[in-house]
Amino acid sequence: MKKLINDPENVVTEALRGMELAHGDLIRVHFDPDYIVRADAPVQGKVAIVSGGGSGHEPMHGGFVGHGMLDAACPGAVFTSPTPDQVQAATEAVDGGAGILHIVKNYTGDIANFEMAAELAGDANVRAVVINDDVAVEDSLYTAGRRGVGGTVLAEKICGAAAERGDDLDAVVALCERVNANVRSMGMALTSCTVPHAGEPTFELGEDEMEIGIGIHGEPGRHRVQLEPADQIVERLLTPIVDDLPFSQGDRTLLFVNGMGGTPQIELYIVYRAAATMLADRGITVERSLVGDWITSLEMAGTSITLLKLDDEMIDLWDAPAHTPAWRQGR
Amino acid sequence: MKKLINDPENVVTEALRGMELAHGDLIRVHFDPDYIVRADAPVQGKVAIVSGGGSGHEPMHGGFVGHGMLDAACPGAVFTSPTPDQVQAATEAVDGGAGILHIVKNYTGDIANFEMAAELAGDANVRAVVINDDVAVEDSLYTAGRRGVGGTVLAEKICGAAAERGDDLDAVVALCERVNANVRSMGMALTSCTVPHAGEPTFELGEDEMEIGIGIHGEPGRHRVQLEPADQIVERLLTPIVDDLPFSQGDRTLLFVNGMGGTPQIELYIVYRAAATMLADRGITVERSLVGDWITSLEMAGTSITLLKLDDEMIDLWDAPAHTPAWRQGR
Repeated sequence: MKKLINDPENVVTEALRGMELAHGDLIRVHFDPDYIVRADAPVQGKVAIVSGGGSGHEPMHGGFVGHGMLDAACPGAVFTSPTPDQVQAATEAVDGGAGILHIVKNYTGDIANFEMAAELAGDANVRAVVINDDVAVEDSLYTAGRRGVGGTVLAEKICGAAAERGDDLDAVVALCERVNANVRSMGMALTSCTVPHAGEPTFELGEDEMEIGIGIHGEPGRHRVQLEPADQIVERLLTPIVDDLPFSQGDRTLLFVNGMGGTPQIELYIVYRAAATMLADRGITVERSLVGDWITSLEMAGTSITLLKLDDEMIDLWDAPAHTPAWRQGR
Repeated sequence: MKKLINDPENVVTEALRGMELAHGDLIRVHFDPDYIVRADAPVQGKVAIVSGGGSGHEPMHGGFVGHGMLDAACPGAVFTSPTPDQVQAATEAVDGGAGILHIVKNYTGDIANFEMAAELAGDANVRAVVINDDVAVEDSLYTAGRRGVGGTVLAEKICGAAAERGDDLDAVVALCERVNANVRSMGMALTSCTVPHAGEPTFELGEDEMEIGIGIHGEPGRHRVQLEPADQIVERLLTPIVDDLPFSQGDRTLLFVNGMGGTPQIELYIVYRAAATMLADRGITVERSLVGDWITSLEMAGTSITLLKLDDEMIDLWDAPAHTPAWRQGR
């Protein structure tokens, strides 16, 4: 295992120390329990948004804490749900009296621990929305139903903007549910990743194989097949996405091509080109784009495609300012 | 070779098509010869800044084209200098009558081709600044003198802001030289990368080895040694950087921890923590930070550290708005 780390036990703590040192103008980091809050938390009278999950998917979620996105993020150990006390403490720390939205990716451990935290944070008015946008598989290694993947990034940007402009809790919850209802994703991997604490690759793939429909922790996908040209890979990902909602001619969309961590940006743009071309052929309009490493699986090589059906309100909120360690826009 | 590509011959062209489709609001892409210009080019009365180099270092330079950074970027084939006709055409396309600065990384081919382009672009008033911030080695595989690496990113941000606010060509050139005089970098690799056209890794590293002082094309560094903990690796990179300028107690700096492409962000923050701590121990102040993949070597795993000695003007320009595919700040 070749990694830029010291003791594998301290990976998350040291990374959080680094974030704290690099971004002290935007965030504050609390240790034991670990959570990140925006520097001006709690913002009185604003709906607070809290998310979290296992570490190893950076910049999600800690990189999204700040003006216009999240009020707090709870990083678990690598690929491990945050504990209830982390989520409880973060929830209480950002409570500005207008209620709190938990944005939770659909993994069994995450859901259980966010639910427990909401109960423990007795005074706070907490609601939860579960993101489950991955069309690859029903029920997976850590999930009942569909997994929550790239749609989470979009939900956090859009709902963060809604909370920032002053929407109340009911409105932010309804918006988050609307984003989740209109977003679909699917991913693939060329290589495995290695969890520092494990020290060995999570799975093995042959030199000419790829895994289609993989999860962000390396969970098995739909099938393992021979490596193909990028255009065919994109068709394998995008066809199930488009057919699932379904997306139809005339729809306005946001196309998000995500890197899993170990794929060069030049390849992500090759994927983007293929996806945008295929959507154009179907008469589906791409009005907004996002290309890059936004929800990763450590150093896994691969990509995921996320497609969101947009409406005017979502576009306005997407374009609204945000200022976080990973997301700088406007202001 | 596992890559998300179609024909290796078309990697750059297809990636440029993807950029054009994803970022049509910010940039325009010209093909044959290939170059990227900001959507509103030429900007009359503004000094234009043109950079470029081999592809494979994304988001540099094409991701930096737009308001507040570059007017044009010339992407060569992967790890190959852009041709003189590319640079000439880009230079002519962005000429707004106030002169043009070529920011050139110190590689023999880049320098020769930018010089020839400046001669061919006969009507334009072109000046060049060569960036040579890599303290690892004197003279390398493709370089006489020191290589140009991470300092280039900082020069493009700071000088782009100066041109945007209306500085004249003499002032922008002097500023670029000042940035170059005050910036030092050094990198390391845990793994090689694979150039698509070559199909084989550029070099081999043992399972317990790393290369200290490597170049961004996999050029040999100072030494190949056994893998060490991150804190020791940082000391190997940062000590030569600090000693070279030298940086001294009381200096105000920008600390830039760069990912080579295949290193997870969580590891970059571990590197950042170690570097910031070491600088604090020496009484050197970090006033601005940049952490992420900004000048890469395809999917190479590794990091580089860049340290810039700041003055008030550089800080103002660093904080100024920019709006490019990869750099969104303000506006």
